[in-house]
Amino acid sequence: MTQEQAKFVVIEGLEGAGKSSAIELVKQIITQHTQQTPVCTREPGGTPLAEKMRDLVKVADETDPLCDESECLLFYAARAQLIANVIKPALANGTWVLGDRHNLSSLAYQGGGRGLMPLVKSISDITLKGFKPDLTLYLDIEPKLGLARAASRGALDRIEVQQIEFFERARATFLAFAAEDDSIIVIDASKPIEQVHQQITAELTARLA
Amino acid sequence: MTQEQAKFVVIEGLEGAGKSSAIELVKQIITQHTQQTPVCTREPGGTPLAEKMRDLVKVADETDPLCDESECLLFYAARAQLIANVIKPALANGTWVLGDRHNLSSLAYQGGGRGLMPLVKSISDITLKGFKPDLTLYLDIEPKLGLARAASRGALDRIEVQQIEFFERARATFLAFAAEDDSIIVIDASKPIEQVHQQITAELTARLA
Repeated sequence: MTQEQAKFVVIEGLEGAGKSSAIELVKQIITQHTQQTPVCTREPGGTPLAEKMRDLVKVADETDPLCDESECLLFYAARAQLIANVIKPALANGTWVLGDRHNLSSLAYQGGGRGLMPLVKSISDITLKGFKPDLTLYLDIEPKLGLARAASRGALDRIEVQQIEFFERARATFLAFAAEDDSIIVIDASKPIEQVHQQITAELTARLA
Repeated sequence: MTQEQAKFVVIEGLEGAGKSSAIELVKQIITQHTQQTPVCTREPGGTPLAEKMRDLVKVADETDPLCDESECLLFYAARAQLIANVIKPALANGTWVLGDRHNLSSLAYQGGGRGLMPLVKSISDITLKGFKPDLTLYLDIEPKLGLARAASRGALDRIEVQQIEFFERARATFLAFAAEDDSIIVIDASKPIEQVHQQITAELTARLA
């Protein structure tokens, strides 16, 4: 019996969609399926250098506001580093990878949210050269509901303080990409957590079967 | 009499070509010509955030080697930030800008030196959208001679420790771009400093006349 090829599974969603608990659940399901703990990544970040790039996009500098192009390029610099030094080596080694966000977030937030889709798509194409997750679970939630949940957890970062319209555009972009791509599964994250987790478990086990 | 439009002048050259003393000279000439001190920038860097990006490309991390794509994207993230928050505002305000390196360095080092020209050109086109210096003085020197000078100054950084062939390719790329672009002037930097400075003064005053 040949060994199943290791897969790259990603959890996406707006702030407050319930990504953290979904990641824990998916980690358990993958571990049970592969008899091995997946490598867990977060974006932006996930390597020592990429975490430093994360700090640059997350913390606002009033004296030197991050311009749109620089923000996009930093996200992809961090992503290229993570793919080269963590994701690809793990997959080549037969270890599954579970990602907290990946490229779809850049398309949704910078492309849709900030209205920079041509720039983001160009940088994405150049940098990733077709590399993409095998499966993405997108936790869909209304921005108003998600942000209320996120705010109750504590202070919001440079991106989380954007206007509601920014997140509305990001959500519409997530849904538009999901409608075009069979590898992106939409999960209704506005339901009670038990139902959300049931749907994740059902979708994921069906895909892994 | 209408005021002369502010210009963006850049000094380029391999390590040890004599950029620092050339910058001082050009700064004096511009100040004399415009009756105003130019804004001086360095790349990568030149803004608080861009300087942090500079640190990421300059310092080697053995546990997380910077991949080629990430290096390119970081250079352009820093450059986008510098253009948006320093260079364009200064020029719009009528102040000349004098740059210690700019885009030609990325084309020469990453494009030529590392053999990533298609990647670099694509990112350059997307990010800069045609923005370029009005005048570039490229201080040309044989890598062997330049690196010997640079090494005598102290420890070399992550890029300065590349093999000699890397710098040979970078030099060939500088010269190839200069041959195609009237705004790039080649200065023979292997000559004694007095002669180099004479040539810089002559070329620059002729262009400013």
